[in-house]
Amino acid sequence: MTTIGFIGLGVMGAPMAANLVAAGFDVTGYNRSPHKVEGLVTAGGRRAESIADACSGADVVITMLPDSPDVESVVLGGDGVLATTRPGAVLIDMSTIRPDVARTLAETAGRHDVGFLDAPVSGGEQGAIDATLSIMVGGDTDTFASMRPVLDALGSTIVHVGPAGSGQTVKAANQLMVAGIMELVAEALVFLDAHGVDRDRAVDVLSGGLAGSAVLDRKAPAMLRRDFTPGFRVDLHHKDLGIVAAAAREAGVATPLGSLAATLMASARAQGHGSLDHSALLLLVEQLSGRSGE
Amino acid sequence: MTTIGFIGLGVMGAPMAANLVAAGFDVTGYNRSPHKVEGLVTAGGRRAESIADACSGADVVITMLPDSPDVESVVLGGDGVLATTRPGAVLIDMSTIRPDVARTLAETAGRHDVGFLDAPVSGGEQGAIDATLSIMVGGDTDTFASMRPVLDALGSTIVHVGPAGSGQTVKAANQLMVAGIMELVAEALVFLDAHGVDRDRAVDVLSGGLAGSAVLDRKAPAMLRRDFTPGFRVDLHHKDLGIVAAAAREAGVATPLGSLAATLMASARAQGHGSLDHSALLLLVEQLSGRSGE
Amino acid sequence: MTTIGFIGLGVMGAPMAANLVAAGFDVTGYNRSPHKVEGLVTAGGRRAESIADACSGADVVITMLPDSPDVESVVLGGDGVLATTRPGAVLIDMSTIRPDVARTLAETAGRHDVGFLDAPVSGGEQGAIDATLSIMVGGDTDTFASMRPVLDALGSTIVHVGPAGSGQTVKAANQLMVAGIMELVAEALVFLDAHGVDRDRAVDVLSGGLAGSAVLDRKAPAMLRRDFTPGFRVDLHHKDLGIVAAAAREAGVATPLGSLAATLMASARAQGHGSLDHSALLLLVEQLSGRSGE
Amino acid sequence: MTTIGFIGLGVMGAPMAANLVAAGFDVTGYNRSPHKVEGLVTAGGRRAESIADACSGADVVITMLPDSPDVESVVLGGDGVLATTRPGAVLIDMSTIRPDVARTLAETAGRHDVGFLDAPVSGGEQGAIDATLSIMVGGDTDTFASMRPVLDALGSTIVHVGPAGSGQTVKAANQLMVAGIMELVAEALVFLDAHGVDRDRAVDVLSGGLAGSAVLDRKAPAMLRRDFTPGFRVDLHHKDLGIVAAAAREAGVATPLGSLAATLMASARAQGHGSLDHSALLLLVEQLSGRSGE
Repeated sequence: MTTIGFIGLGVMGAPMAANLVAAGFDVTGYNRSPHKVEGLVTAGGRRAESIADACSGADVVITMLPDSPDVESVVLGGDGVLATTRPGAVLIDMSTIRPDVARTLAETAGRHDVGFLDAPVSGGEQGAIDATLSIMVGGDTDTFASMRPVLDALGSTIVHVGPAGSGQTVKAANQLMVAGIMELVAEALVFLDAHGVDRDRAVDVLSGGLAGSAVLDRKAPAMLRRDFTPGFRVDLHHKDLGIVAAAAREAGVATPLGSLAATLMASARAQGHGSLDHSALLLLVEQLSGRSGE
Repeated sequence: MTTIGFIGLGVMGAPMAANLVAAGFDVTGYNRSPHKVEGLVTAGGRRAESIADACSGADVVITMLPDSPDVESVVLGGDGVLATTRPGAVLIDMSTIRPDVARTLAETAGRHDVGFLDAPVSGGEQGAIDATLSIMVGGDTDTFASMRPVLDALGSTIVHVGPAGSGQTVKAANQLMVAGIMELVAEALVFLDAHGVDRDRAVDVLSGGLAGSAVLDRKAPAMLRRDFTPGFRVDLHHKDLGIVAAAAREAGVATPLGSLAATLMASARAQGHGSLDHSALLLLVEQLSGRSGE
Repeated sequence: MTTIGFIGLGVMGAPMAANLVAAGFDVTGYNRSPHKVEGLVTAGGRRAESIADACSGADVVITMLPDSPDVESVVLGGDGVLATTRPGAVLIDMSTIRPDVARTLAETAGRHDVGFLDAPVSGGEQGAIDATLSIMVGGDTDTFASMRPVLDALGSTIVHVGPAGSGQTVKAANQLMVAGIMELVAEALVFLDAHGVDRDRAVDVLSGGLAGSAVLDRKAPAMLRRDFTPGFRVDLHHKDLGIVAAAAREAGVATPLGSLAATLMASARAQGHGSLDHSALLLLVEQLSGRSGE
Repeated sequence: MTTIGFIGLGVMGAPMAANLVAAGFDVTGYNRSPHKVEGLVTAGGRRAESIADACSGADVVITMLPDSPDVESVVLGGDGVLATTRPGAVLIDMSTIRPDVARTLAETAGRHDVGFLDAPVSGGEQGAIDATLSIMVGGDTDTFASMRPVLDALGSTIVHVGPAGSGQTVKAANQLMVAGIMELVAEALVFLDAHGVDRDRAVDVLSGGLAGSAVLDRKAPAMLRRDFTPGFRVDLHHKDLGIVAAAAREAGVATPLGSLAATLMASARAQGHGSLDHSALLLLVEQLSGRSGE
């Protein structure tokens, strides 16, 4: 039986680890705040007291952490993943981090004879619970093939998009588009409201045409109800847009709309909406338009 | 049998008029360039030599013209639609024009005892041919109900979104979102290319998540083939974004992303891409990124 | 003695007309709200009861009105300027209007054998009072030369920049730059404040370098005192930026920064700051940054 | 006599070091490429073979290096400035680097009992040669006072703007405004050209009003001659705008115009204009407007 060390049992990581147990894997979980491991134990997994404890017997180590520095610390640190995982094992980082950091991790893992995939996800907490995540995977083809059974237990759309770092690049492109479309939908909704149009009907007809988007389908109804329960928080999207900006800058790619959307997301955060769903960009458009939204 | 006068037999109007004939309506068509009427005659319609000729016996008059001034001229002119259409008939303007002009036309038509709907469409030439257009309709409820059989012959999604002008407002919101999403998709595609990602696979995985959009599904494949055959031309989208800007300005609505997308669409036009498909925004992003695209 | 008909005795027009009297001209003034003519009478001018009354005996007619439609109405109307001014006279429009409207007025005036200059100003109310306005003049060279004594009574920098409409074009460029620089200064001031820098000293050192600007010199001190007394109102700058946008669109010129500044000026207005000085863009940047400004 | 170790003898550093010699200081210079030290020796300074050699006998160490990592390496490295400078000496970093890095350097220097000032400059190569730089200084008041004679030998406007890091913050604000104003001037010049206005005269009249700026005065004439000889290179301004973006992001400050200007500067670089003067933003605006500029 494949044994998996799972590091990072937060909102996303906890249900993912439980799904791996349900799929028959032997999962040992570690989290810095130890109480978050309890759910995994209840689900049939095991508790690790340290990173080393999670990694030492593992065939596969999965990390699901907030940001690039967290992953660097956990993977590269003195008693970290690479120092304690056996040669021949595979590390799958499913966090959303900078593509260049992912490439560095892949190289360093290679020097330890540990395989590496960067495999960030989209689909949110619900996708994690339902094992319907989209997973964009960078790394070499053989490693991808060998890890397919593990990934299949976590998501429904699993695509190998290129060499190490590519998964993070595609995730960055995802976050760029989502932020921009969210803002465009917010602008359209305020525009329609200001002109006295029935917005529910308008969303119906707009969804069916070239203006249609997953954001319009899944987010506009809650926006019209003014329900900004996350979902995906402004704070996290702001963090991810920092990754997008760095990666665009590194490659010399012009992303004028993406950059402006990032400015607005940063403003939403600066105004105290950081813990709301990213669809709270609507509040910003209303404010800029001098409208209370009620 | 309901008789229809159809004015404006261009790329969109010609197949729409033919579909009305096919649905059993008695259609008389007029176009300023008379040779464009031939297709309608072949399809079983009749040729009008003047606007008056198309309108004088009609129960319903449909206009499908390029821009606000064209519609104003054809509808309000000396021998125009309102001067020559019988009281009790209905005028349906399916052009994309300014919402405030639509409201003015509705009022003027009302003084002539002619009903009025603004009913712009989305779905493009193919939607016009297949009678699968989305039609966003503004006007009073009874007039909408009475015209439903006519509209059913032209589209598959037909939604009454509010009083006169509302159809144009919703169309404006449509064009705002489409322009912005097109630019975001272009930015994402250049970003992915610059990082060496397999773009076909990336589009596959992106389409399934929150970044998914009709633009990504329908336009990205041709963009990756560098096929910018319209479709919907940059020139027309530029015109429509002028309508969006005026309507947003009138209502005091902030559309920062929409406005920046309009700036870029205007630039695509200024650089000579006016007759390409609006997905040619890709060329602009490549240029701004110092990439030839090949 | 040259007789001048002066139409539009508002905040700017009233002191300008008085300066013409002081310079020895015979000035007859008209204003739609008649009480505004009293100041001119006190200063030694005469009251006209109608546009015709102001124009019929005049060698020179000056218009100083809020917007393009006002000028069109006053100049082209039935009992308007061109209908009542003698052939051989000269019309100087000093309002800020659209360049294409100025060109149309010039052509129409020509058909009446009336000379025409477009001569918008900058320098604000204080410049009008002190006769230190900058005046940017479009029109033919001879007419400019003949009107030089009149313009000399109103401003200190008087430049002939090209044929009819050119004055308005230069004024539009002026308003584009002023709006953008105002926003940049606002962004810089909030940035400095957020980092705890002594802003008075920072403005001192910044003023002396390549970042220096008239906006920084003249407006930053009041912005730091949070004094937004106009000066030049947001409402008027918003109007002028509509002229800029139309003229840029007509010429196919990309003005990405200018357009974004216009979006923000429109937002300042939508949020109720229309009657504050345009330096109130500071309030918008503070808001977007989640800062109260106190 | 005060002895100064000067590290970094590039385009700016070389004339600055020579000016210190001319003012009577005993200057020992170090540069990674040793041939650049020759000018200093000719001017009467001395050559150091290593950082340690430059620092060991110095009362004051000045660093003038390209970017944050260079300064970190030179100051904090094993045989770097802090390892080899005597307690009680003062380090003045005149490079343009990140404010947070400057604060870290100040703290670390303090632990070595070495004083620290961050003192970035504006005024360019000519200002360095003429000793007319503007110098924005962060650090404690006493250290600033004691270093005043050194700074007086380098610049004509020397302002203490706050605690450590403040100099870099003000420099960042400077670069934000300069980039934005440069772009606005470029937009205005293309706008004027597209409307057929005499641009030399227009610049004259615009310079005198609220649209006036040092960029318009000093840069527009060369832009109109299409002379993009640096001056200050696009590459360096692009680097500095990365600092601005990071510092704005850190503080949660919205800089929408500054961010868009940064996008355009990055595009100028991506298109191969990196070694031109930053006024080459004109080329970008011309391109976006479909104009060749000739």
